[in-house]
Amino acid sequence: MSIKIGIYGYGNLGRGVECAIRQNPDMELVAVFTRRDPSGVKTAFGDARVLHVEEAKNMTDKIDVMILCGGSATDLPTQTPELASLFHVVDSFDTHARIPAHFDAVDAAAKASGKVAVISAGWDPGMFSLNRLYAGAILPAGKDYTFWGKGVSQGHSDAIRRVPGVKNGKQYTIPVGAALDAVRSGANPDLTTREKHTRECFVVAEEGADKAEIERQIKEMPNYFADYDTTVHFITEEELARDHSGIPHGGFVIRAGKTGVSGEHTHIIEYSLKLDSNPEFTGSVLTACARAAYRMAEKGERGCKTVFDIPPAYLSPLSEEDLRRTLL
Amino acid sequence: MSIKIGIYGYGNLGRGVECAIRQNPDMELVAVFTRRDPSGVKTAFGDARVLHVEEAKNMTDKIDVMILCGGSATDLPTQTPELASLFHVVDSFDTHARIPAHFDAVDAAAKASGKVAVISAGWDPGMFSLNRLYAGAILPAGKDYTFWGKGVSQGHSDAIRRVPGVKNGKQYTIPVGAALDAVRSGANPDLTTREKHTRECFVVAEEGADKAEIERQIKEMPNYFADYDTTVHFITEEELARDHSGIPHGGFVIRAGKTGVSGEHTHIIEYSLKLDSNPEFTGSVLTACARAAYRMAEKGERGCKTVFDIPPAYLSPLSEEDLRRTLL
Repeated sequence: MSIKIGIYGYGNLGRGVECAIRQNPDMELVAVFTRRDPSGVKTAFGDARVLHVEEAKNMTDKIDVMILCGGSATDLPTQTPELASLFHVVDSFDTHARIPAHFDAVDAAAKASGKVAVISAGWDPGMFSLNRLYAGAILPAGKDYTFWGKGVSQGHSDAIRRVPGVKNGKQYTIPVGAALDAVRSGANPDLTTREKHTRECFVVAEEGADKAEIERQIKEMPNYFADYDTTVHFITEEELARDHSGIPHGGFVIRAGKTGVSGEHTHIIEYSLKLDSNPEFTGSVLTACARAAYRMAEKGERGCKTVFDIPPAYLSPLSEEDLRRTLL
Repeated sequence: MSIKIGIYGYGNLGRGVECAIRQNPDMELVAVFTRRDPSGVKTAFGDARVLHVEEAKNMTDKIDVMILCGGSATDLPTQTPELASLFHVVDSFDTHARIPAHFDAVDAAAKASGKVAVISAGWDPGMFSLNRLYAGAILPAGKDYTFWGKGVSQGHSDAIRRVPGVKNGKQYTIPVGAALDAVRSGANPDLTTREKHTRECFVVAEEGADKAEIERQIKEMPNYFADYDTTVHFITEEELARDHSGIPHGGFVIRAGKTGVSGEHTHIIEYSLKLDSNPEFTGSVLTACARAAYRMAEKGERGCKTVFDIPPAYLSPLSEEDLRRTLL
C-alpha cells in the first residue's frame, strides 16, 4: 500500500516534489493543488491530476500527506496550520528567525487534528541543521561554520531586479576559499560576514540605463550586499538565459572540535552539498520527510516535528532489518 | 540532575569516553570497570573510581548508562547482552556482518530487563551509516561510496606484526584521490577494491630479518593486502615511536544522485571526518549516544536501538526549543 501524497502549490519546488515521488515506489501522487486555474497548469510529467486549492478540503480521505510547496514569507505561515488540521503535512519553512512561532502555530493545529506536521525540511533548514546538531553533540568543545554556495540566492536576485534600470539579474553566493581552508585547519577562526562569502551578480540593464549607478546601488544595498565584496557583471538577456538559467546551490557545514585530556586532538566534521537544482533537491528532502511523517503518525505521534525529531530510519523505504543489514 | 555513566573496559576507547564525559556537564562518570587489578589502572584524569568488572552488578542503582568499551571480536558479543540486563548500555560493535545477530541477542536481553541498548555507535558503523541512510533516502536514484582514511587500521597493523621477522608495525589506509574525484564528479563509477584504497605499511624488522621476504609476505597476504596496492617502508623503532604513535583516522561517505524529469540534474552529498584520534572521536559519539539512550528510556522506549532509531535531538544536551531556535 503506497503513501498517498498531495502537492500544495506548484512552482519549482512543487515540480521538484513531483519528480521525487516518481523515484519512490512506495508513494503515489494523488493530486497537485494550485491557486491558478487548474486547466492552465502543466505538470512536469503531464499525468498528474491538477485541482484548485479549494478542493483540498474535500480530499481528506484520499491523501495521507500534503507536501506544502509555497513560500515562507506569506504562504506557509497560514497554509501549514490550516492544512495540518486536515492532513499530515510537510513544509520547507525557512525563515530561521520565525521558526519558533511557526512551530507553535503548526503544533497547536496538528495536535488539535491528531496529525503529524514536519516543518522546515529541506537542506537549510534541514540537512544542514541536522549536521550542526550531530556535530555539536559529538564535539561539544568546538565551533561550527555554515557556508552557502556556490549557488543562486533567490532573495538577492529579487533585490537586484528591484534596482531602477535593471531588467533582469541573478546573484550567486560564493564561499571564500581561504575561509573554508581556515575552518578546515581546525583553527576555529573568527570570521566576519565579508570574510565568509562573496556575491557575484549578473545583471541585464535596460537600454540607456546608467550602469555605474546600478552597480553602486547594488553594492551599497544594506543587508543584501553592503557587508560583502560584491562583483557586478553586465550581460545581455541572451547571455543570462544561456549561462544562468539553472538554479544550482549547495554549501558546507564544518565543525572543528577538540578532545583529549587537554584538548590535544582536533577533529574536523564536514558535510557538503553540491546541487544542480536547489528546488529538486529540496523537493527530494520533503518527499523523504513525507514518508517519515506518515510513519510517525502510524506510531501514534501527533503534533509538529522537525528533522531533529525524526528517527532517521523513518525517512528510508527500507525495513529496519534491511537498514541494519545493508547500511549500518 | 546529571546522567550517571559507567565505563566498562578501559583501553584507548574507554579513555576516550572518559575525556568526552568531561566535556558534557550533564553527565557524571561514576566508575571505570576493568578486568585487570583496579589498583594498577591509571585513568586519564586520575580521579575516576576504578572497580573490577565483577563489581558492576552491584552498581545498578548508581549507574544509568554503561558504556561498553571492549572489542567486537570476543568482548561485546557476550558483554553487551549481559550488561543490558542490568543497565542501559551503549556499545561500538563494528563487525558489520554480525550486526543482525548481535542486535537480536542484545534486543532480547534489553527487552527482558526493560532497558535501552544502543549498539554499533561510533563513526563506521555510526555517523557514516547515518549519512549513507540520509543520502540514500533523499536521492534514491544514486549510489553511495565509503572511503576510509587516511588513518591507522588496527586490524591491518596487527596482521603486519604477525609476519615472521616483524618486530613492530603500523598500517595506514589511504583513499585514492582519483577515485574520490571520480565519485565527486557524479559519474557513479564502478570501482574495484584496488582502485579505492591503497595501504601503506611502516615496519620495524627484527635484526637480521629478511626484509624482502617480509615485504613479499605482507603484500601477498590474502584479505588484508593482496587486493590492494601496498607500500612497505622499513623504519626503526625510534622512527615508529616518533612519527607513527598517533591513532588518526577518518574518511568520506559520498552519494551522487540524479533528479528531474529524466535525471537531468546531479547532486553530490559528501560527509567527511578528519580525526586526530580515532578512539577519542568514537568515545565522543558513544557518550552522545549514552545521553540518547537515557532519553529514550525516559520516553518509555525499550530494547536494542541503533543510530538509525535515535531522534537526533536526543543526542544533544540542548532543549528541543533551544535546538529549533539556534541550530535549525
